[in-house]
Amino acid sequence: MDRPAAPTRRITIIDVARHAQVSTTAVSKVLRNAYGVSPTMQAKVRQAISELGYRPNAAARAMRGQTYTIGIMLPDIRNPFFADILDGLTARIAGTDYQVLLGPGCNGEEAEARVIHAMIDRGMDGMVLVAPISTRAYLEQVAGVVPTVVVGRHGRSQTYDTVADDDLTGAALVVNHLADLGHRRIAHIEHHETTADCLAEMPNAIRAEGYRQAMRARGLADEIDIASTRYNQEGGYLGTRQLLARPVRPTAIFAGADIAALGALDAIAEAGLRVPDDISVAGYDNTTFAAFRPISLTSVDQAGHEIGADAARLLLDRIADRNRPTAQIKLSPALVVRRTTAPPPA
Amino acid sequence: MDRPAAPTRRITIIDVARHAQVSTTAVSKVLRNAYGVSPTMQAKVRQAISELGYRPNAAARAMRGQTYTIGIMLPDIRNPFFADILDGLTARIAGTDYQVLLGPGCNGEEAEARVIHAMIDRGMDGMVLVAPISTRAYLEQVAGVVPTVVVGRHGRSQTYDTVADDDLTGAALVVNHLADLGHRRIAHIEHHETTADCLAEMPNAIRAEGYRQAMRARGLADEIDIASTRYNQEGGYLGTRQLLARPVRPTAIFAGADIAALGALDAIAEAGLRVPDDISVAGYDNTTFAAFRPISLTSVDQAGHEIGADAARLLLDRIADRNRPTAQIKLSPALVVRRTTAPPPA
Repeated sequence: MDRPAAPTRRITIIDVARHAQVSTTAVSKVLRNAYGVSPTMQAKVRQAISELGYRPNAAARAMRGQTYTIGIMLPDIRNPFFADILDGLTARIAGTDYQVLLGPGCNGEEAEARVIHAMIDRGMDGMVLVAPISTRAYLEQVAGVVPTVVVGRHGRSQTYDTVADDDLTGAALVVNHLADLGHRRIAHIEHHETTADCLAEMPNAIRAEGYRQAMRARGLADEIDIASTRYNQEGGYLGTRQLLARPVRPTAIFAGADIAALGALDAIAEAGLRVPDDISVAGYDNTTFAAFRPISLTSVDQAGHEIGADAARLLLDRIADRNRPTAQIKLSPALVVRRTTAPPPA
Repeated sequence: MDRPAAPTRRITIIDVARHAQVSTTAVSKVLRNAYGVSPTMQAKVRQAISELGYRPNAAARAMRGQTYTIGIMLPDIRNPFFADILDGLTARIAGTDYQVLLGPGCNGEEAEARVIHAMIDRGMDGMVLVAPISTRAYLEQVAGVVPTVVVGRHGRSQTYDTVADDDLTGAALVVNHLADLGHRRIAHIEHHETTADCLAEMPNAIRAEGYRQAMRARGLADEIDIASTRYNQEGGYLGTRQLLARPVRPTAIFAGADIAALGALDAIAEAGLRVPDDISVAGYDNTTFAAFRPISLTSVDQAGHEIGADAARLLLDRIADRNRPTAQIKLSPALVVRRTTAPPPA
């Protein structure tokens, strides 16, 4: 299903212009069949195209139905976990003719719709939507137009493929680790959701539910305490300030994403508290930041690289055969214990 | 020169399909004037388009010469400084009809050419190339085809606009700060360049030159010591391991980018040394990471947000008037002293 590898040096519109001794604008006009191109110019450019073996450009290919472009929508380019997904994705399509372009979704329904429309408008052959917050009905419509893989969200669809992590289990791994260390006041920082679809399907909502279930299973139902902010550095910071201001402070904070754990560590440092002596912190995603030795953050590995590679594979499959049944891949998380978690202060 | 703000809820191909009670594929075919669309279908779709006031999509606009898409090439999405540039850029174009798509340039000439060609092929109205490593001649050719702003690189061009930081001054700020603290063995971690164009124009090469000049100006010519790796976490880690293995260890490391300073701190922690007690570390870019309290990295602020906003403004200007003279914006850096720098050990 892969396309043959691109030649090392691809012939471009610039080469054609140089060879025909005309401007690139002129070449572009000929390629677009624009008005105002003289027959002489037409002939010069077409001859150069033929002599150089110039391949039809994306616009021309688009008329035949393919642009060899894959659009990736990422909610936030500051979150290093999304870079892991992107690495896995680009590694998987390396050697094919596909080119990746990214659209920042910005965690907003309106911004997502703009990016998705832009990608559809520009004729992308397929899209990978990472943790989109749009309604399920909207995603189904989009996937009806362009082959789509949805990453992170749970739930089975008849029109798009999904790759997700077992977030319920991942959250339980953290709660059980902290409870085993002797913590009871284990608080959670979640990424806030409001819509029914998101509450049912978003990885962040499932992690929060996993946290609640695991707390209850450990007999800690009364200790459930959630700061509802966002999965970014500021969200972690603000959530932790809320939690540190409680009448009885938590002894451990489980941030639903490493990037939020970063903000938690920032707020804890600001409050003059020590990690893990005064308070334990765990994240989720096992990003490069978690492995950074001066921090050494306990986190949940959900194999971002593998998620990206799986998404690319499913998308190429889907582009090749739009009628095959949809696939749902669910990966198993693993806890990576590092230095930010320890028994609670005596 | 800005386009009017987009309406809150844009009419899309999906709305047209629903209104006409046909598939989105059918609408798409009508819009592309594809073969095999019945006159009845044509009429249905055209009526829906007219009733809903659907605006021509990017493909249709492209035929008239504009796609309202701006392509941004970033060398590395893991570097938080590029996120700052992107934030400034998107803030500046918010409220216009332009949509941003990103292409990962991956710090390689071949990868850059692929991304740039993809953006030209897909009819981007303009491009912002962040720290491209391609030859100057190639960048001139590209800018001859599509309005282009080059960010980070020095050097004046007749075809593209530039926004750069005064990297010579920025590097001197760091060296003088460390020398004022009493350091003599101040080492530098640079991002390696090989080509003449890059050595003359790339911000990293200018920073390394600024380091050498400032060391000489402080009478520290004999102490000049550069580890030549890359501006990423691994580059900073490997460069620092080299420097720590010197017969006489440096007492301060100036990493040319915060992301490389992150790797430096990682290697220093691995070696069991303390910052700043045993060794001082300074970065460049003043990213969110530098302000993160558990690290609190001394760094050079080069106003990434402003760089992005300036680049967007120049690009919109250039799209509106391709014949205006090119502009060169140079911003002035400022040192932000935090906790990773202190006098050398006695």
